[in-house]
Amino acid sequence: MKEPETVFELDPRLKQDCVILGQFPLSLLLLMNDSRYPWFILVPRRPGIREIFQLAEADRRQLWSESCSLAEALAADFAADKLNIAAIGNLVPQLHIHHVVRYQADATWPAPVWGRHPAIPYDGRALTDLRQRVEGLGLAGFLPRD
Amino acid sequence: MKEPETVFELDPRLKQDCVILGQFPLSLLLLMNDSRYPWFILVPRRPGIREIFQLAEADRRQLWSESCSLAEALAADFAADKLNIAAIGNLVPQLHIHHVVRYQADATWPAPVWGRHPAIPYDGRALTDLRQRVEGLGLAGFLPRD
Repeated sequence: MKEPETVFELDPRLKQDCVILGQFPLSLLLLMNDSRYPWFILVPRRPGIREIFQLAEADRRQLWSESCSLAEALAADFAADKLNIAAIGNLVPQLHIHHVVRYQADATWPAPVWGRHPAIPYDGRALTDLRQRVEGLGLAGFLPRD
Repeated sequence: MKEPETVFELDPRLKQDCVILGQFPLSLLLLMNDSRYPWFILVPRRPGIREIFQLAEADRRQLWSESCSLAEALAADFAADKLNIAAIGNLVPQLHIHHVVRYQADATWPAPVWGRHPAIPYDGRALTDLRQRVEGLGLAGFLPRD
C-alpha cells in the first residue's frame, strides 16, 4: 500500500526540466529550462495536492497573490504580448502553475507552448542573467536560491 | 482613434464557438461547443481586461471563488481524471479562463486540448442534458440562462 505524502518534495520531472530560482511564502519558483520562452512555474509547497481546489482557503489566497504579483511583474519587465497562465498537470500530477511570457514573434505563437517544440536549454551565462533579472523584479516575499 | 471599451460585451469569437450557460456574480459561464470534452469557460464581465492582474482586487477574489467552486463541482460530477485550468488568450484578447474536464481516455490526452482537433458540436439533446447537469451542480450564485 502506498503511503500518503506527508512532506513536500518537488516532483522528479519538474526537478529535471526546471531550475529552482527561489521561493515565495507558499510556492517554489521554477524556471523551465527552455530558452525559447521566459517560462516560470509556481509549485505550492504542500504535499499530495493535484488541483487548486484541494488547497486550504488561506493557501489559495496566497497562491493567487503570488501568481498575480509574478504575472504583473513579468508582463512589465519582459514586455510580454500576453501571459499564458495554466494549471494542466496531465503528465506531472503535482500541482504547478505555468506562467509563460508570450510574444507574437515567438516560435509557437499563437499556439500554447506545451508539447510543441523540444526545449533549448539556457547556457550558464544566460541563466545567471535571468536569475539576476528575476531578483530585480522586487517580488514581495520572494527569497532567491542559488 | 479607438475608443476604450466601457461596457462589457462578449468577444465575437467566444460568442461563435460557445454556448452561454448562465452567469455568476462576476463571470459568464460558457460551454465550448465541442462534445469531445466537457469544456467550460469563465468570462469576467468587465470591459477591456486581458490579464487576471488587471482586475480589481475584489474582482480577482470573486473570480477565484467562481473558478474553484466550478472546478471542484466539475471534478466530482464528471469524475474527471484531471482539470485543466488556463488563461491563455493568444487568439481571443478578452480575459477568459478555460476549465476543461480531462480523461485519460479522451482524444487528446495527455496533450492540452487547444488547437489539436476540430470541434465536434453538441446535438440539441446533448446540449439540453448538459445544461440540466450544470444547473444540478448547485453552484453558489449561478443563474442559468436559456
